Amino acid sequence: MTNTKQLNIGMVGYGFMARAHSHAWSSVAHFFDTGYRPVLKAVAARNVSKVRKFADAWGYESVEPDWQALIARKDIDAIDICVPNDLHAEIAIAAAKAGKMVLTEKPLARTAAEAQPMVDAVEAAGVPNMVWYNYRRVPAVTLIHDIVASGRLGKIFHYRAKFLQDWTISPDVPQGGQGTWRLDVDAAGSGVTGDLLAHCLDTALWINGSISSLSAMTETFVKERKHAETGAAQAVGIDDAAAVLTRFANGSLGTFESTRYARGHKAAYTLEINGEKGSLAWDLHDLNRVQFFDHSVEGQLRGWTNILVTDGEHPYLGKWWVPGLIIGYEHSFTHQVADFLEGLKSGKPASPTFREALETSRVCDAIIASGKSGQWVTL
Amino acid sequence: MTNTKQLNIGMVGYGFMARAHSHAWSSVAHFFDTGYRPVLKAVAARNVSKVRKFADAWGYESVEPDWQALIARKDIDAIDICVPNDLHAEIAIAAAKAGKMVLTEKPLARTAAEAQPMVDAVEAAGVPNMVWYNYRRVPAVTLIHDIVASGRLGKIFHYRAKFLQDWTISPDVPQGGQGTWRLDVDAAGSGVTGDLLAHCLDTALWINGSISSLSAMTETFVKERKHAETGAAQAVGIDDAAAVLTRFANGSLGTFESTRYARGHKAAYTLEINGEKGSLAWDLHDLNRVQFFDHSVEGQLRGWTNILVTDGEHPYLGKWWVPGLIIGYEHSFTHQVADFLEGLKSGKPASPTFREALETSRVCDAIIASGKSGQWVTL
Amino acid sequence: MTNTKQLNIGMVGYGFMARAHSHAWSSVAHFFDTGYRPVLKAVAARNVSKVRKFADAWGYESVEPDWQALIARKDIDAIDICVPNDLHAEIAIAAAKAGKMVLTEKPLARTAAEAQPMVDAVEAAGVPNMVWYNYRRVPAVTLIHDIVASGRLGKIFHYRAKFLQDWTISPDVPQGGQGTWRLDVDAAGSGVTGDLLAHCLDTALWINGSISSLSAMTETFVKERKHAETGAAQAVGIDDAAAVLTRFANGSLGTFESTRYARGHKAAYTLEINGEKGSLAWDLHDLNRVQFFDHSVEGQLRGWTNILVTDGEHPYLGKWWVPGLIIGYEHSFTHQVADFLEGLKSGKPASPTFREALETSRVCDAIIASGKSGQWVTL
Amino acid sequence: MTNTKQLNIGMVGYGFMARAHSHAWSSVAHFFDTGYRPVLKAVAARNVSKVRKFADAWGYESVEPDWQALIARKDIDAIDICVPNDLHAEIAIAAAKAGKMVLTEKPLARTAAEAQPMVDAVEAAGVPNMVWYNYRRVPAVTLIHDIVASGRLGKIFHYRAKFLQDWTISPDVPQGGQGTWRLDVDAAGSGVTGDLLAHCLDTALWINGSISSLSAMTETFVKERKHAETGAAQAVGIDDAAAVLTRFANGSLGTFESTRYARGHKAAYTLEINGEKGSLAWDLHDLNRVQFFDHSVEGQLRGWTNILVTDGEHPYLGKWWVPGLIIGYEHSFTHQVADFLEGLKSGKPASPTFREALETSRVCDAIIASGKSGQWVTL
Repeated sequence: MTNTKQLNIGMVGYGFMARAHSHAWSSVAHFFDTGYRPVLKAVAARNVSKVRKFADAWGYESVEPDWQALIARKDIDAIDICVPNDLHAEIAIAAAKAGKMVLTEKPLARTAAEAQPMVDAVEAAGVPNMVWYNYRRVPAVTLIHDIVASGRLGKIFHYRAKFLQDWTISPDVPQGGQGTWRLDVDAAGSGVTGDLLAHCLDTALWINGSISSLSAMTETFVKERKHAETGAAQAVGIDDAAAVLTRFANGSLGTFESTRYARGHKAAYTLEINGEKGSLAWDLHDLNRVQFFDHSVEGQLRGWTNILVTDGEHPYLGKWWVPGLIIGYEHSFTHQVADFLEGLKSGKPASPTFREALETSRVCDAIIASGKSGQWVTL
Repeated sequence: MTNTKQLNIGMVGYGFMARAHSHAWSSVAHFFDTGYRPVLKAVAARNVSKVRKFADAWGYESVEPDWQALIARKDIDAIDICVPNDLHAEIAIAAAKAGKMVLTEKPLARTAAEAQPMVDAVEAAGVPNMVWYNYRRVPAVTLIHDIVASGRLGKIFHYRAKFLQDWTISPDVPQGGQGTWRLDVDAAGSGVTGDLLAHCLDTALWINGSISSLSAMTETFVKERKHAETGAAQAVGIDDAAAVLTRFANGSLGTFESTRYARGHKAAYTLEINGEKGSLAWDLHDLNRVQFFDHSVEGQLRGWTNILVTDGEHPYLGKWWVPGLIIGYEHSFTHQVADFLEGLKSGKPASPTFREALETSRVCDAIIASGKSGQWVTL
Repeated sequence: MTNTKQLNIGMVGYGFMARAHSHAWSSVAHFFDTGYRPVLKAVAARNVSKVRKFADAWGYESVEPDWQALIARKDIDAIDICVPNDLHAEIAIAAAKAGKMVLTEKPLARTAAEAQPMVDAVEAAGVPNMVWYNYRRVPAVTLIHDIVASGRLGKIFHYRAKFLQDWTISPDVPQGGQGTWRLDVDAAGSGVTGDLLAHCLDTALWINGSISSLSAMTETFVKERKHAETGAAQAVGIDDAAAVLTRFANGSLGTFESTRYARGHKAAYTLEINGEKGSLAWDLHDLNRVQFFDHSVEGQLRGWTNILVTDGEHPYLGKWWVPGLIIGYEHSFTHQVADFLEGLKSGKPASPTFREALETSRVCDAIIASGKSGQWVTL
Repeated sequence: MTNTKQLNIGMVGYGFMARAHSHAWSSVAHFFDTGYRPVLKAVAARNVSKVRKFADAWGYESVEPDWQALIARKDIDAIDICVPNDLHAEIAIAAAKAGKMVLTEKPLARTAAEAQPMVDAVEAAGVPNMVWYNYRRVPAVTLIHDIVASGRLGKIFHYRAKFLQDWTISPDVPQGGQGTWRLDVDAAGSGVTGDLLAHCLDTALWINGSISSLSAMTETFVKERKHAETGAAQAVGIDDAAAVLTRFANGSLGTFESTRYARGHKAAYTLEINGEKGSLAWDLHDLNRVQFFDHSVEGQLRGWTNILVTDGEHPYLGKWWVPGLIIGYEHSFTHQVADFLEGLKSGKPASPTFREALETSRVCDAIIASGKSGQWVTL
């Protein structure tokens, strides 16, 4: 590994996503030989004691009191943004201007309008950039993408995806603040649309191409919540649930749904695609499995094949264990880092770039708009 | 059984549904002691050799050359209509006027407008009437209904149902004629909406109450097919696929989808309902199972319970075998006959009556209308 | 149906199995055109009121006070024995001597020694005979048999089967008497071995050939139970659970297990066979499904295919409904009757004949013997 | 983290298991605050280029040419043995004598006779010691252990476990050498018994207590293989498959099976335990799930509950992500390291210690002996 280059990471934030990203940066070189070795150089956040504790646990070499200080450092190669959505744009644009590589947790920003200058900034600066739509890198999802791309399903008729959770059913869950900013429309931009549907849409656009029009229904079941820090009652501005009918450019029909009010579902992202010659399905709760119906099999033996995606010939799996031994959620981030590093080496950027992720933001905006207007929206 | 009354059945038609109904009429008394013994008295159809063969196989005592002759017979108590949808209204109205009990295969008619006079006729005549929405009588579905009705799920947030098939993907499937009249809009009234979604809607209205508004997307993937008998190329008038967003009167959101272009799905009617305190789900392909998530269970042990609905205390099951031994599709018809006969005895009509089924037709009409207009429809 | 022959059935017994058999006899001609029409001519049992009620429900034309009277009737073609195991031999031998066709519920008798004269009697009389090992006629099981017989799995390495129940866990369940004679060793001959393992063994011998040696462990968890009728405490003589290691003549290894103490399992008969080129599995609780692993599929797409055995090209299914609509437990009996009638027509007896079923009894005897001795038994 | 102690790890070996252990050592402090920070200090192996590459990928600070040199280093606190089974004893004993903590990959040694001096050595030296039976630390398995230990299942009747693989079906797979030493009886001690059944037995002894007697069937399907390095044909000395009947000290019956000839199964370790009041089951391929049947639930709603073991209140899960996001195979090693470190802190050794793992070796020896003798063996 004498030829590996060191890549110094500057992390912004120390929450749930910062942990997932840090794990990916710190373990990728154990499994993937990309020619780069990420180093956890510094982490920035305003809460001194929390960021210090985070830095100690993960072995960050230093801490900074704010993202401006982090960006100002000469020894940082890449800025990784793991803070609420309303902060993405400012930080990313500043980082790009400083010539840093920029990675941001999804969604790119609260709206497409807010995201557009981010795209402009990274492209103007010519810096590598990526949005962490990690589910593309679940091996089962990558396998589905590759099978569809091979044409094996023939003409596509249907695409359907759902992302169901149940953690906000109680009206006692507060909004705003550190653990619950996703319920605060000012911080998040939207509710389940930007948080959950955005994942479904990113995958769908990748696998099934662009969406040409849509009609959405959105709902806010709990109209008022207390603020997590102030305790003040506030109107809820986010969408608690969203369901969408779509037409794809390839002529297929799509249905999408997301909610945090589906009791019994924790992170139930499921997708299915039906083509003339076959169908494919996946469920995040069983993330190592693909369901495949191959119509070309002889009649008596046709059925849905449950593919346990753990063999060396499956995407990414040759780097892990042996057949039958499953991997988990965080591996998708490790794969994304591996692809990002491969992209640095090859000069072919890992997707989704800011530009690619902007399209997902546009669809999210259309969903919110249609939910309000009751009209079909053409994209 | 000295006290059992004989109920003479007059069947119209000899196709797939006539077989399912005949099985129910002929076997119900073996398992259910309702006080009635149905007798397969006569079957009417124009194709003499086919109806004769059908009558022999099932033990019908006689055949009639047309439904008019059947209705004219004094010894027939109940007319059971198993012919294409466009014939339901005329036969049912005539039967009611002749004072016969009337049962018709679903949907009630091609449209609500066509169905309304049927409702009027049976009510004017005061004759027992029922529409064969048989899936209500799958024990698992009945169990779901009963649990929801008990209030155990609390406030309902979501209802979703799909009915997926794949048998019309090939453009070589003809339309019109005996086996494929469901593809002929003149005979069927609509495509998947009246054939498949109607089942989903009947169940949903029964379990979750009325639908107040909806927005639909419909599509005809194959635009032209040959007629099964003439071979002439014809425009396809039915909806091949339909997806619907609904708002229920109880404040919950619904999503419905049906298609005959979902490769790998044969008769995949699935439903799920999410409430504050729990969720329930069912799949026709595993019709003896209910999935139940009970949020009241202690945290570490919570999950989806797979209830094998074969115990004596489950709906209808005490009449069949022993725990663990499953029943199949046709049993739902047997249960429906049992309930119809119980209704005769008790004077409390078995549901859905013509009037109840009319509501499903209204929702179907709204789906077709919204699919065309692109607008939300208020019911 | 002018060419169909009438076959007059004389039933002995009116319990659970008599219901299943009667359903098969009464409905087979509705679905299968075998050239025979079974007629429920008479049923015999000593309990006058119960047998009368049973006859009324099922439409038996007459009742007889005992099996001797039934056998004496000239108008009975076939005797169907649905009484406890200790009565099989005497009735079957008498029926054979009277020139009747003889069908008996499984197992053939309490022991192979008791069964041998039954075989001798039907063969001496030259009368058609069959034992109701119905699970062979579950379409999924038939499909597995046919795939294995085609050689598609290659060399076989493993066969494993279990039949798990949980209904005798409570020491309060009595033994003896009408509903619980299966717990009385005098009536049943053995416990789970003859009742449940016998099914597993019949299927295994059919699919995987003969067993050459075995070692068994048997256990009686509840040592004493009250008699159902007298209330007297009695020692329990049956095996509550049995587990068996076997070597098949084809070189494969077998494991078998049966118990009535596996909480949560109602009638969980499962089997699996592993060959060089593929594997097959089945579960009675999902009786319409076969799991198939086909090693010849390309690596990335290999997996266990869940075959929904409801298509017209699957065994027996062409006679029932349409793809996706499942059938249940009792259909296996209807199929067995259909095969029996086909055998009458073709002269090729439907299996298992008494002689074939005798082999299963021999293996059962070896299990009980090995469970007592702790030694391997060579068959 | 100023109070954390550094623990210097010396790894012996660089193969599959060395990777899994290294991942655990290097990531445990990111998630578990045990007061210790493991440091990958040195790795020893004879193949210079391979060990160097391994050290680079994982960040080991140095390499040693053999385990003797590693043990001789003063700066190493713990020796982790990840080499073939025949080398465990010598290394472990030397490490113990040198006062090092000793951890060895399972099984402890090739036989109990070989393992006993290892137990003696670590106990004489008073050094912390542990065997990597990692599956105990799968959260679902830990949950099962805890539920059983709570008495919630009541009296236990049955325990069954299987570990099925299919990677040695081809006679072309060689034996001996680096990747295939598990097929060489001299290196491995036994075949599936020590490699796979040992895992099942470790879990069973932990959950269900000691085994009092057993009867086994073992088989070698492929009698001769080429040596991986020399190419010379050699007799195969290992057991390719083993099936075992056991009686546990608590009166329950056990069945165990393991094979590398079960086509379609990759690492299919499954277990189930049936008690008077409930049952529990688990499958390594779905390692985040527990199946639980709770007989205390009201009758209509009873069933097998599929518990997705990803909530914060589940064992170990509070340290990972959020509900619904699964973890994988390697996490079990991280948990084992966390428990080992907790044991250092608390002085209560993490299980299984060498002494505890010796019991598993004894049962393995009894299986091999019974497989040869055909006799029951009392333990």
